[in-house]
Amino acid sequence: MALIVQKFGGTSVADIARIRHVATLVEREVKAGNQVVVAVSAMAGVTDQLVSMVREVSPLYTPASQAEYDAVVASGEQVTSGLLALTLQEMGIQARSFQGWQIALKTDEAHSKARIEEIETDALMATLESGRVAVVAGFQGVDAHGRISTLGRGGSDTTGVALAAALKADRCDIYTDVDGIYTADPRVVTRARKLQKVAYEEILEMASQGAKVLQIRSVEMAMNYNVPVQVRSTFVDVPGTMVVDEEEVMERRKVTGVTHTRDDARITMTGVPNVPGVSAAIFGPLGDANINVDMIVQNITEDGKETDVTFTVPRTDLERAKSLVESIKPSLQYHSLFADKNVAKVSVIGVGMRSHAGIAGEMFKTLAEKNINIQVISTSEIKVSVLIEEAYAELAVRALHSAYGLDAPEESAA
Amino acid sequence: MALIVQKFGGTSVADIARIRHVATLVEREVKAGNQVVVAVSAMAGVTDQLVSMVREVSPLYTPASQAEYDAVVASGEQVTSGLLALTLQEMGIQARSFQGWQIALKTDEAHSKARIEEIETDALMATLESGRVAVVAGFQGVDAHGRISTLGRGGSDTTGVALAAALKADRCDIYTDVDGIYTADPRVVTRARKLQKVAYEEILEMASQGAKVLQIRSVEMAMNYNVPVQVRSTFVDVPGTMVVDEEEVMERRKVTGVTHTRDDARITMTGVPNVPGVSAAIFGPLGDANINVDMIVQNITEDGKETDVTFTVPRTDLERAKSLVESIKPSLQYHSLFADKNVAKVSVIGVGMRSHAGIAGEMFKTLAEKNINIQVISTSEIKVSVLIEEAYAELAVRALHSAYGLDAPEESAA
Repeated sequence: MALIVQKFGGTSVADIARIRHVATLVEREVKAGNQVVVAVSAMAGVTDQLVSMVREVSPLYTPASQAEYDAVVASGEQVTSGLLALTLQEMGIQARSFQGWQIALKTDEAHSKARIEEIETDALMATLESGRVAVVAGFQGVDAHGRISTLGRGGSDTTGVALAAALKADRCDIYTDVDGIYTADPRVVTRARKLQKVAYEEILEMASQGAKVLQIRSVEMAMNYNVPVQVRSTFVDVPGTMVVDEEEVMERRKVTGVTHTRDDARITMTGVPNVPGVSAAIFGPLGDANINVDMIVQNITEDGKETDVTFTVPRTDLERAKSLVESIKPSLQYHSLFADKNVAKVSVIGVGMRSHAGIAGEMFKTLAEKNINIQVISTSEIKVSVLIEEAYAELAVRALHSAYGLDAPEESAA
Repeated sequence: MALIVQKFGGTSVADIARIRHVATLVEREVKAGNQVVVAVSAMAGVTDQLVSMVREVSPLYTPASQAEYDAVVASGEQVTSGLLALTLQEMGIQARSFQGWQIALKTDEAHSKARIEEIETDALMATLESGRVAVVAGFQGVDAHGRISTLGRGGSDTTGVALAAALKADRCDIYTDVDGIYTADPRVVTRARKLQKVAYEEILEMASQGAKVLQIRSVEMAMNYNVPVQVRSTFVDVPGTMVVDEEEVMERRKVTGVTHTRDDARITMTGVPNVPGVSAAIFGPLGDANINVDMIVQNITEDGKETDVTFTVPRTDLERAKSLVESIKPSLQYHSLFADKNVAKVSVIGVGMRSHAGIAGEMFKTLAEKNINIQVISTSEIKVSVLIEEAYAELAVRALHSAYGLDAPEESAA
């Protein structure tokens, strides 16, 4: 007998028919003799509706208002937890719903983005030991003052993983509308392959590169508590992708996946005086304005007196970033400012990089063969990212996917 | 400084615009220097939506399923409590929401129709004493096992009155879509007058006679704890009707109001053997089938061997009742069965009846003058009801309203 946590997202519980389908997936684990805890999101669209009502009355600037935001939006998961428990009961499976405060799932007081501090397991374990399924409202907890708190958008993933960690579950299955993690976006690379296993660190890089499958905090938590997570489809009954510790990724591949995003914009400042304090003068104001600078490169001119500084910011923040950089021109005395929205960031990711040299060189060579110009490069231990012209993004991803030997055999291509 | 409980129903908080209006009514009490506790219903229509989702998955036959029903439907009030607290905060009024379990408002375990057992007042009083408004989610509480419970439809009235009783409030204002209690239905009697005061006992009789302004349980609770209740309009700013102790109804009127309902149907059985045990044989099966028999009359035939039995049942239960009565014909050996849906029950109500004789006689005389035939009569200490042909209902109500001197003067007629 294993203890399984199953988490179902908003599209998986979007209506009564889908809730009934989800109940059959719970039933399967129960019939297999497992103890089952389920974490559910709100029905698709409900949280957005609740948030828009809250926004209509308040800009939510104060802790008191954020606490009320939480009381309102947490109601969506309350509804699905009750409906799924009822549906299971109708199928002859004993089940009961738990709200965050009933567990109790204790968080800090950072309303609307609370962090889990402790999960009491007595009530849940008693439910499991009496042969019942515990259906937990995701996304929510309770603070030290007994107020309802919520964990931020996508927080039900974190609820699922946190429950698995607290209950020392054998597995946490994240059911969603994709059937696993792929070596690249299958809409771009037709020969992308579903990964059987992926390391926590890899999915963290992939998530921040736009894979958008799991909330990043839930992966960090899974890594910290070594919770085996499976990403799998609610709608297609095939094995998903296991997210596991690096050591368990047995395939000795150099690169695990190729990702791309179109969320960035590039700013280049030319003729910046090469004196101490210049970086602080540029990036200080951007940081103060809460603009997240990602890639940064700096080239010194031949005489060493000036530098060119290039960096990327979220595309949605480009206009604000440009205004800020323009506003420091009088003090900084740089020559000119160029901005470009038509860029894409392409990354190759893999824990195999730790033991394989030459990954970056192979990337640059592959792109050069396709005449793709690299604008900016950044690297981490398990990732190499390049900024290129947006029009070449798909070509670059496909070329890299082939170059690193990730393509599926022709016969099993999608 | 007074402590005021304000209760707002579903139509009063139906959308954000109305919630903003409700907030101005709260603000007025705060600006008058009062401590304010607000109880809110779910937005109009929301509870029905939630109930229909629950019904789609479960017939709700078990305590376990009723507990889940409560978890689902209580979410509607959670939303409005948060939204109203936020709206007040935006107006500069400190406020916070309370769910039933946060108070705690403790109930028994009769899920979906729970009864309040105890209300802890510490958290609410601390909120009031810190100068804040407490916005309480109506209709819900928490049972001894920490499960969410609900009080039955219309339960937010009961929440309001129970909070007023527990907090020893100076007044409980029930804001609704009518502006008070009238001497008769103003749609039928154009010269109906709004009552300044009405006794608890009177409104109990009126509610069960179809006035439908307050949940009956809330009035019983107000009477038991002597809570002064005001029924008033959310939308029209005029004084409402105070519901108070009988002794405080100072006007020495004989009759307080005239009501009518079309919810009943009549069954007459002729030639029933006049032997012991006949009533039990008829009304036992009806009670077992949960059919609520209201008025009963029995006439003995001249020879004393047979009786005619007439009674009323809810119109919606008529077919079931007929089948049951027909099924006992072989054993009971009565002659025939007549059923009539085209009946109306007209009642005159007033605590003044206790000290005024001849009220019933005056009623019968007034109806006789209009050639209205009385089919059944029933009386209580403060009420006389008659069953008549439905077509005469309005005529009867108007005639009685005039006869007891309830008509408004011509100049103030609606």
